[in-house]
Amino acid sequence: MTTTAPATPAADTGTGTAAQRLGAFTAGLRHTDLPAEVVTAARLHVLDTLGCGIAALALGEAAYAVAGADEAGTAGPAAALGVPHGLPAAEAAFVNGVLCHALDFDDTHPDSVIHVSAAVTPAAFAAGQAAGADGATVLAAIVAGNEVSTRVGAAAGGQFHARGLHPSGVCGVFGATAAAARARGLDADRTAQALGIAGSMASGLLEFLADGADTKRLHPGWAAQAGITATRLAAHGARGPATVFEGVRGFYATYLHGIEVDLAPQLDTLGQSWNTPSIAYKPYPACHYTHAPVDALAGILRDNPSLRAADVASMVAYTDATGVGLVLEPAADKARPRTPYDAKFSLPFCLASLLVHGTVDVASFTPDRIADEAVLALSRSVSYEQRTYSPRPDAFGGGVRVLTTDGRTFEAELRYQRGGAENPMTEADVLDKYRANAGLVLGEDGVRALERDVTALQDHTDLGFLAVVRG
Amino acid sequence: MTTTAPATPAADTGTGTAAQRLGAFTAGLRHTDLPAEVVTAARLHVLDTLGCGIAALALGEAAYAVAGADEAGTAGPAAALGVPHGLPAAEAAFVNGVLCHALDFDDTHPDSVIHVSAAVTPAAFAAGQAAGADGATVLAAIVAGNEVSTRVGAAAGGQFHARGLHPSGVCGVFGATAAAARARGLDADRTAQALGIAGSMASGLLEFLADGADTKRLHPGWAAQAGITATRLAAHGARGPATVFEGVRGFYATYLHGIEVDLAPQLDTLGQSWNTPSIAYKPYPACHYTHAPVDALAGILRDNPSLRAADVASMVAYTDATGVGLVLEPAADKARPRTPYDAKFSLPFCLASLLVHGTVDVASFTPDRIADEAVLALSRSVSYEQRTYSPRPDAFGGGVRVLTTDGRTFEAELRYQRGGAENPMTEADVLDKYRANAGLVLGEDGVRALERDVTALQDHTDLGFLAVVRG
Repeated sequence: MTTTAPATPAADTGTGTAAQRLGAFTAGLRHTDLPAEVVTAARLHVLDTLGCGIAALALGEAAYAVAGADEAGTAGPAAALGVPHGLPAAEAAFVNGVLCHALDFDDTHPDSVIHVSAAVTPAAFAAGQAAGADGATVLAAIVAGNEVSTRVGAAAGGQFHARGLHPSGVCGVFGATAAAARARGLDADRTAQALGIAGSMASGLLEFLADGADTKRLHPGWAAQAGITATRLAAHGARGPATVFEGVRGFYATYLHGIEVDLAPQLDTLGQSWNTPSIAYKPYPACHYTHAPVDALAGILRDNPSLRAADVASMVAYTDATGVGLVLEPAADKARPRTPYDAKFSLPFCLASLLVHGTVDVASFTPDRIADEAVLALSRSVSYEQRTYSPRPDAFGGGVRVLTTDGRTFEAELRYQRGGAENPMTEADVLDKYRANAGLVLGEDGVRALERDVTALQDHTDLGFLAVVRG
Repeated sequence: MTTTAPATPAADTGTGTAAQRLGAFTAGLRHTDLPAEVVTAARLHVLDTLGCGIAALALGEAAYAVAGADEAGTAGPAAALGVPHGLPAAEAAFVNGVLCHALDFDDTHPDSVIHVSAAVTPAAFAAGQAAGADGATVLAAIVAGNEVSTRVGAAAGGQFHARGLHPSGVCGVFGATAAAARARGLDADRTAQALGIAGSMASGLLEFLADGADTKRLHPGWAAQAGITATRLAAHGARGPATVFEGVRGFYATYLHGIEVDLAPQLDTLGQSWNTPSIAYKPYPACHYTHAPVDALAGILRDNPSLRAADVASMVAYTDATGVGLVLEPAADKARPRTPYDAKFSLPFCLASLLVHGTVDVASFTPDRIADEAVLALSRSVSYEQRTYSPRPDAFGGGVRVLTTDGRTFEAELRYQRGGAENPMTEADVLDKYRANAGLVLGEDGVRALERDVTALQDHTDLGFLAVVRG
């Protein structure tokens, strides 16, 4: 889904190399050019992203990022999650980028398969704080970054994943660079140079899949840090190759050797359509294949408020063949997760958690909770039926049938997981998610203050309000 | 050329994944394990590298790196060229890495085609200063870094260049990581984790060739900074994939898709043979194809001390077809270089500079010098003969014939350029180069003090002496 606006692009984005066109779009973008629904979506994604980072901090995830920044013994103007003093912009962008992605609870753009905001938002905020930018500028910077990341990635579809590269890193660095460049007010030429420099900083291997290493979490942070560095160098006169995207030794030719990638169609709609509103939220900090059955059960509970965990005799989950392999088999392991991370890939555990505790959120995946006998007993009652759902990569359909001890049956099914374009989360859903996450660290006043400040982002004369995230 | 030592490896480098074997080698390497010629070579490369960086600083090259670091407004324990106060380790490593490579005057390992020291030395020094390491530890760290970079690169021959990637960046990050890990004293497992993390920070496109962008200069700096960051994260518990080199989504499989690379033969000789002594020095800060003719002329002048520029009627340069295209044609442009950088690719200008001023060094390539009519008149007298030389990539043969106004002829030819394994620069040559470079910023006392301190590197209890490079 893209939102089409009649507005004329603010700058000449139709001529030059791809980097020059993206540079012209980025440098020329003003808060007042943005359609209202793009502004609303951008602010909501900021809240969602900060909430994910705050929750990761609360749970002690990726503590090495915070500890490493603290070791450096540096100080600067930018706020970083969990670091009591300000940090230099590049360091803050790194810490925040890692933490906002650490729970795998942050947003994803389906067509590019990029965790967009986890790199863009930290880069825009850190560069904005260092430059003393106002909120309206930073809002434009975030939208520019979202549009650049998603277009650079969407041009190549799923090819980066197929080659072992993580687009949240290798493409994310361009969005982070655009965001940082706009936040510090670089002109079109300098922004294009910064994008050229960023091409020599693009990285992120998927080899963590072999042994569950921590590198995936680092990719948005490193992209955000590189975006700050590339922008800083360009601001001081360093030049990047103008043909960083289309050149024979450029980004696509090297990283996707032998595959033709045409970025031009993505550039032709710059300033005319917007990807920001189609970035998908994640309702649960668990494997995508758990989402539809869990949401189906949540619907049953909403419609039948008297239904209690004690009333349930057993459940039957519906998912497709891939889902069975990921979240239902081997059944014995799924009924008793071995680690909190393992529990994110157990559909029986997630359904049982929702029934017993009323929510599936970051607090569901702790050492205490995975030893909770009430949850585990219900987990063991879950069986499954394999079904066929839409092959769309972001569909992830599924459902559940509940049988009670007194013989009643309840059933619900979602053809599309919630959070994507076909079944969006409402603004209220996203705000609830943010409040639950932020509330793990900030008091009720802090949660409300940050929500109020981000919702009024375009009215701030500076970004001082972000100091609240220092924890 | 490799130097073989009978010593037993200090650690078990024979088992595990490639990252684990490199980690064991790096963590176990002691100054006392190193053959004397390896120690001598390592120290001489440090001096050469620092000299190149100091010269770049003197000439105002890559000023954006220094300006960018200063803007960050940070302070820390590590010395950076041209920055009056200390910087955090990662920032200092970046600035020094960029400056040491900025003149393209720094060393290269022929088999891997990597500018080795420009990433390894800054990473080792910055990490060592932050950790309070002694000189003997940092010396071992530098050798470990040299061995890791060159082996990771040599396993793939020239394939990275062929794919548009700069091995000084993408491979250099692993050497910088090893150097930083050894300097801060990480154990074998943490070092292997750091190498795994570094795989997600490997970057550096060759697209700068399209328009002469500054990105090539940034690659060793970014590799050095990434090495510091990867090491810091591993020290605080972050884990990288153990199979970062050999995995199906690992470094070679992604960056050299479809090409089989076997790192094992490179690992089997770890601790038994050493690549550090075969890293080649560059005698002149100019295109490789100018070196042999310039050195041939230098030999003629040495043998005929009475020969003066005023005696010379004309010169005939010898080079091969590639050299003709790079440094002799178009003849009109080469006789009158348009910029100092252009002059580095003019053999007539280089020969004439040597005759008129007695040297070809960094002072030869300035706006004043390229307007020097005495040099330009002699440049116009240069013609050439195309010859055939060894096809070895680091051979770069060439020569010169000198005709005097009174009818005498002098001729000399080098089958191999000086500085590589077949025609090495002597220690005295390298020291002369260092002294000329360092003398552009440091006084005579400073030049001698730094030379004395680096020559006694293994005896220092800390690296405080490096403060002299702050300029």
